[in-house]
Amino acid sequence: MRIKLSANRYGKNAVNLSRIIRHEGYHEFRQVSVSVALTGDFDAAHTLGDNSRILPTDTQKNTVYALAREHFTSSIEAFGLTLSQHFLSRNPPVSQVRIELVEHLWQRLAFDGVPHPHSFTGGGSEKRTTVVTRTAAGPAVSSGLKGLLLLKTTDSAFVGYPKDEFTVLPETSDRILATECEASWNYVTTELDFDSRHQQIRQSLLRTFAGHQSHSVQHTLYAIGEKILQENDVVAEISLIMPNKHHIPFNLEPFGQPNTNEIFVATDAPFGYITGTVTREP
Amino acid sequence: MRIKLSANRYGKNAVNLSRIIRHEGYHEFRQVSVSVALTGDFDAAHTLGDNSRILPTDTQKNTVYALAREHFTSSIEAFGLTLSQHFLSRNPPVSQVRIELVEHLWQRLAFDGVPHPHSFTGGGSEKRTTVVTRTAAGPAVSSGLKGLLLLKTTDSAFVGYPKDEFTVLPETSDRILATECEASWNYVTTELDFDSRHQQIRQSLLRTFAGHQSHSVQHTLYAIGEKILQENDVVAEISLIMPNKHHIPFNLEPFGQPNTNEIFVATDAPFGYITGTVTREP
Amino acid sequence: MRIKLSANRYGKNAVNLSRIIRHEGYHEFRQVSVSVALTGDFDAAHTLGDNSRILPTDTQKNTVYALAREHFTSSIEAFGLTLSQHFLSRNPPVSQVRIELVEHLWQRLAFDGVPHPHSFTGGGSEKRTTVVTRTAAGPAVSSGLKGLLLLKTTDSAFVGYPKDEFTVLPETSDRILATECEASWNYVTTELDFDSRHQQIRQSLLRTFAGHQSHSVQHTLYAIGEKILQENDVVAEISLIMPNKHHIPFNLEPFGQPNTNEIFVATDAPFGYITGTVTREP
Amino acid sequence: MRIKLSANRYGKNAVNLSRIIRHEGYHEFRQVSVSVALTGDFDAAHTLGDNSRILPTDTQKNTVYALAREHFTSSIEAFGLTLSQHFLSRNPPVSQVRIELVEHLWQRLAFDGVPHPHSFTGGGSEKRTTVVTRTAAGPAVSSGLKGLLLLKTTDSAFVGYPKDEFTVLPETSDRILATECEASWNYVTTELDFDSRHQQIRQSLLRTFAGHQSHSVQHTLYAIGEKILQENDVVAEISLIMPNKHHIPFNLEPFGQPNTNEIFVATDAPFGYITGTVTREP
Repeated sequence: MRIKLSANRYGKNAVNLSRIIRHEGYHEFRQVSVSVALTGDFDAAHTLGDNSRILPTDTQKNTVYALAREHFTSSIEAFGLTLSQHFLSRNPPVSQVRIELVEHLWQRLAFDGVPHPHSFTGGGSEKRTTVVTRTAAGPAVSSGLKGLLLLKTTDSAFVGYPKDEFTVLPETSDRILATECEASWNYVTTELDFDSRHQQIRQSLLRTFAGHQSHSVQHTLYAIGEKILQENDVVAEISLIMPNKHHIPFNLEPFGQPNTNEIFVATDAPFGYITGTVTREP
Repeated sequence: MRIKLSANRYGKNAVNLSRIIRHEGYHEFRQVSVSVALTGDFDAAHTLGDNSRILPTDTQKNTVYALAREHFTSSIEAFGLTLSQHFLSRNPPVSQVRIELVEHLWQRLAFDGVPHPHSFTGGGSEKRTTVVTRTAAGPAVSSGLKGLLLLKTTDSAFVGYPKDEFTVLPETSDRILATECEASWNYVTTELDFDSRHQQIRQSLLRTFAGHQSHSVQHTLYAIGEKILQENDVVAEISLIMPNKHHIPFNLEPFGQPNTNEIFVATDAPFGYITGTVTREP
Repeated sequence: MRIKLSANRYGKNAVNLSRIIRHEGYHEFRQVSVSVALTGDFDAAHTLGDNSRILPTDTQKNTVYALAREHFTSSIEAFGLTLSQHFLSRNPPVSQVRIELVEHLWQRLAFDGVPHPHSFTGGGSEKRTTVVTRTAAGPAVSSGLKGLLLLKTTDSAFVGYPKDEFTVLPETSDRILATECEASWNYVTTELDFDSRHQQIRQSLLRTFAGHQSHSVQHTLYAIGEKILQENDVVAEISLIMPNKHHIPFNLEPFGQPNTNEIFVATDAPFGYITGTVTREP
Repeated sequence: MRIKLSANRYGKNAVNLSRIIRHEGYHEFRQVSVSVALTGDFDAAHTLGDNSRILPTDTQKNTVYALAREHFTSSIEAFGLTLSQHFLSRNPPVSQVRIELVEHLWQRLAFDGVPHPHSFTGGGSEKRTTVVTRTAAGPAVSSGLKGLLLLKTTDSAFVGYPKDEFTVLPETSDRILATECEASWNYVTTELDFDSRHQQIRQSLLRTFAGHQSHSVQHTLYAIGEKILQENDVVAEISLIMPNKHHIPFNLEPFGQPNTNEIFVATDAPFGYITGTVTREP
């Protein structure tokens, strides 16, 4: 059997770009991390060391910065569409371009209810994300968020599961449910107000999480996905990753106190890892 | 010269504790990481392996959880005072107890302006901190914050510095100023409403950062410290760490575009590290 | 269109297990992080909150520890095969079990050439990995490594690439090539001495990296993959991730010194991200 | 009381520098992270925004790279001495320079016992460190290491400690002892072969850790410090940080198995934090 190259991809990752958008009387500030990936006929580079089709990742980086001034002026999705078009149209060997953008979310400071014109605070773990892929057939946009920490102190139970000789966990009708939510959804069109749609979907996610009578992480995950599909015809499918970040009741009885479901050990590992996709049946 | 033990300290770190405070109709949720450190006459443990004075760090951990139910009900400072009192009074060899608390800040979700009774979001890099130290002479409280990302898009210059043969940096009258602020301040008393005082100091920090005509990070650092001391007689001294997180203008000229101070490379390393303490002269 | 559950999976991640294997006169020490993932018919849990088919992740965790004493005695692959068999055979709704093991590599200390019987050093970024998947059709084993930092100071060039108006990078016939290598390969059988095979493949990877006259990361990646397939009939396919961790020449000319390709800026971001799979043609 | 500036310091951190040292027939490769900190009379910068005494951190960075070609040719201590001398002699307002160097340790690859001339592997958590401080009175060198993971599977006990109502931990005569060791020691002179001395001290640390009959982390910490002082007259004092990285026996009895001290839960938090300084009595 002959040995050959199969799937392959390359590009520049973590192109960290920030920009000021200057308006009369106030500034916007945006910060993104851009990753470019190119797929195509790069066999000769791999097998022969022939770089004549390899657009350097350094050039990709420069292109991101150079196109940002004119084109990174609204949503990350719009910028991703522009970048993907640029790389696909200019590089004949490329069959697919993938642009991933992760946006750091800065909030404008406000004092006495008055938004400050040019000062911001940041640092939240939640990021807004998009992946734009483009082939000769056109672009596709999958958007989402990650790093969104959510927690509810009640309306979460876990009962009725199978038991075996390795079962120790007691059933509980009232536990903390905490997760670091990652979500991505496919838009059926690229003609969208991506910013307002993102806010609407995010709000729906939060509202469903908060209001759900949860029987398990899976149960809440599905409820979120279902709700977002019900409310958003432009979303074809949504994938959710919702690790179960355990807050385990600390047993106070050895210390002469009742266990009143108030004091918990917040743990990092191990953790439950729950992932699922909710889609539409044709 | 005889060899001997000098400074030493031990304790349990990263005791990750979360709690629900249950009110009629709504819950509070709090999460802290507690670190205990004991200093005292532990020579025999070191030199002879005699553990008769070594309170196990496992016992320290249990104590934190066991005391939390009754005593972690308001500020981290109040809980730190209780813990420090417990460990000092119960362990004769201990000359100093140091309790460090780092609080993860969860925000209550709200929908249509209505706060949700039991759902929260978290994940910000900003933490509220306190260090309570206690000796036979009494307790001392130093409180603060860390991980607070701040950025302003103008009102920051850097000119007039010395030049030598290694100087490349151009002077600028208009640059991005960004930092991840860490602050800690010493209270002159433990009889305080720690929560409202923290909010007041934090607000003063934000307001000074936003409003300052900055000539350098040092200049802004001092302005913040001075303002906080001016407004808070209960603060004796404040130390600030304000790394300069550089956003460097990307040079667009090679690509046929003007440099309009809009497009920047956001960098992690290297970074300026600026630290200073502002105090009162007796 | 009806909304429905599509792909989904759950399990316990980051089950951090260490063990001592006690031999006459010396000990072995092993540390792994185990992640279990179950796929199957879990629709009712998602849509109805019916947990009767959901083996709790806590039970999964206990099972890993409980089976470790008898079964984690040799390779991570062997332990993965046992765990996958356990979970598949005991849980009828499960159609696929995926066990991922990441091994932390501890080295025995030695003094004056004599291996110490029970003391070890650790902390390397390189991990040994395996993923065992099992369905009714049987098991499949994909093994590998990650976090392997490799660097060569010469025998690496990058020339002959396309130029456009965003090109700044100069061609170079002599650069540093550095990567943090991740590799995974599929075995065609589970009847193997996994430990010696792993060492053989790893050695081949190192040797090819060191000896290659590299025209690009892609060129070296393919050379590594080809060599491993040539030497190992039991490997069907290998995937490599080789980010280009740039060491960029620092321009000394402004400071009156020649650029002699000796002084570099070691960077974390942005980085080239190069990935490829080398396979056998049927 | 007038408000004033107290302790302050600034400089460039994380100047990530790598270099090739080219010998006939083989190369050396070195990588360090350099941090510069200047202390002095910088009051006017803080209170007036007058930068006339503030050597920019960008200039500091350039200086590190520019001096590296001639001066970073042997130990990190020697390079730190040169850098500290440069910054102190050239900047009159500076009263103290502090240069911290952290070296990433690359190992030369070898095949069939033959060292490869230009290929290396890296990625270990252990770093070699030094802090050189210099004032008008001269330089001082404190060197060390950090990130050194050490573990022994026996010869470690913990008994005889005080018990109270929060005690749960059972006494044990045979436990795993694991730590991530950080050490720094002060040299009484700068006229040293820093490289061979470092190896000698490190070897002594490893040997003492391995051979000690440990009654506690404190007991082992002191034994290491004492041994290093006994064997090295050029060391005045050594400080050690030895967190207790717990490997906790997993209780197998609920699952019908005996507890044979073989299977452990490897934990990250909470952890014991033990620190101590061993010195010479005048």
